[in-house]
Amino acid sequence: MIVGKVVGSVVATRKNERLLGSKFMIVEPLEKMSKKERIVAIDNVGAGIGEMVLVAKGSAARIGCDMENAPVDAAIVGIIDDSIGLND
Amino acid sequence: MIVGKVVGSVVATRKNERLLGSKFMIVEPLEKMSKKERIVAIDNVGAGIGEMVLVAKGSAARIGCDMENAPVDAAIVGIIDDSIGLND
Amino acid sequence: MIVGKVVGSVVATRKNERLLGSKFMIVEPLEKMSKKERIVAIDNVGAGIGEMVLVAKGSAARIGCDMENAPVDAAIVGIIDDSIGLND
Amino acid sequence: MIVGKVVGSVVATRKNERLLGSKFMIVEPLEKMSKKERIVAIDNVGAGIGEMVLVAKGSAARIGCDMENAPVDAAIVGIIDDSIGLND
Amino acid sequence: MIVGKVVGSVVATRKNERLLGSKFMIVEPLEKMSKKERIVAIDNVGAGIGEMVLVAKGSAARIGCDMENAPVDAAIVGIIDDSIGLND
Repeated sequence: MIVGKVVGSVVATRKNERLLGSKFMIVEPLEKMSKKERIVAIDNVGAGIGEMVLVAKGSAARIGCDMENAPVDAAIVGIIDDSIGLND
Repeated sequence: MIVGKVVGSVVATRKNERLLGSKFMIVEPLEKMSKKERIVAIDNVGAGIGEMVLVAKGSAARIGCDMENAPVDAAIVGIIDDSIGLND
Repeated sequence: MIVGKVVGSVVATRKNERLLGSKFMIVEPLEKMSKKERIVAIDNVGAGIGEMVLVAKGSAARIGCDMENAPVDAAIVGIIDDSIGLND
Repeated sequence: MIVGKVVGSVVATRKNERLLGSKFMIVEPLEKMSKKERIVAIDNVGAGIGEMVLVAKGSAARIGCDMENAPVDAAIVGIIDDSIGLND
Repeated sequence: MIVGKVVGSVVATRKNERLLGSKFMIVEPLEKMSKKERIVAIDNVGAGIGEMVLVAKGSAARIGCDMENAPVDAAIVGIIDDSIGLND
């Protein structure tokens, strides 16, 4: 997983039908994680813009969030509220 | 997922038979996503050149687009029509 | 897999329910592995901060650690206690 | 998927038995795709050195090429014979 | 897959029980493959230090090497003994 900040969101009216109802958040990984490359992740925990979140990627996003048959490859699965060494 | 722009397409007459009928679009990710490296994605939503799209990668592309047994690792699964913070 | 050092941990009170009870460790890969980009991995072997560990990524983390249905994409699966050529 | 050029091949006499009969081609991605890092892909369509091909990566390579139980993570699944915007 | 050279090995006494008996080799990809970032791969073919090998990554490593339930994401699946264009 990686830790990043929610910096925005996107809306797609025309989309794969299994994505209906999903929220697509833009997450910017912390500088020391994943080259600061932003990704779009579905929101599984009610995260808001500005929050620091935990993102799971790959098949884990689909299977771990009960969207096994949806074209989803990244999901916000936790909201960070404490840490050790995260910014060192 | 990542957001990118459809910048072209490729045609392969000789191909794996499970790819028959698929359209292969070239997508250039936004500069802040995925190092601007282009990928080829099948089109699941009727996207055209110049459109800004949502792309799912990995097993999500196959399974989420009902092509479970096809050699597909990326799919356009939405067309972006609104966003917050996408270009910041 | 990659080898890295446990440099911290994160806590998420609000999270996907299948992550309840998991410990999220921050691992910094060795300089010659994986671009020094830190990742967050669940701890499957009781690793502590400062230890050199083996991390499995992708579906292997879920399936290999009996968390098949959890949104987990990286796991600490061993603690390194000997090596040849690791730092050459 | 990515588009690249077949630039060579490798032979492994000692190998996992499920790879018997497979041809291993070296593919160099186009400069705008995948950082020009070469990969080794099995050949699913009869591609030759010098041809421009479509490569699928990850589980798609195994599952899409009827090699579900083989240790294969990349496959040539099409030979490019036309394109729009591929070299722009 | 990628081609690399076995440059070392690691030992983990405390590890996930499904890794018992596995040998963990450090592989350095060829310069033109995978950014020279080293990975740790289980040995499926009896490779030794200094040998040039073929490495499969992702679920292919587990499934293709009969370790479907082990936390393994990379495996040495062949020993290279001939090639065309590998070092060009």
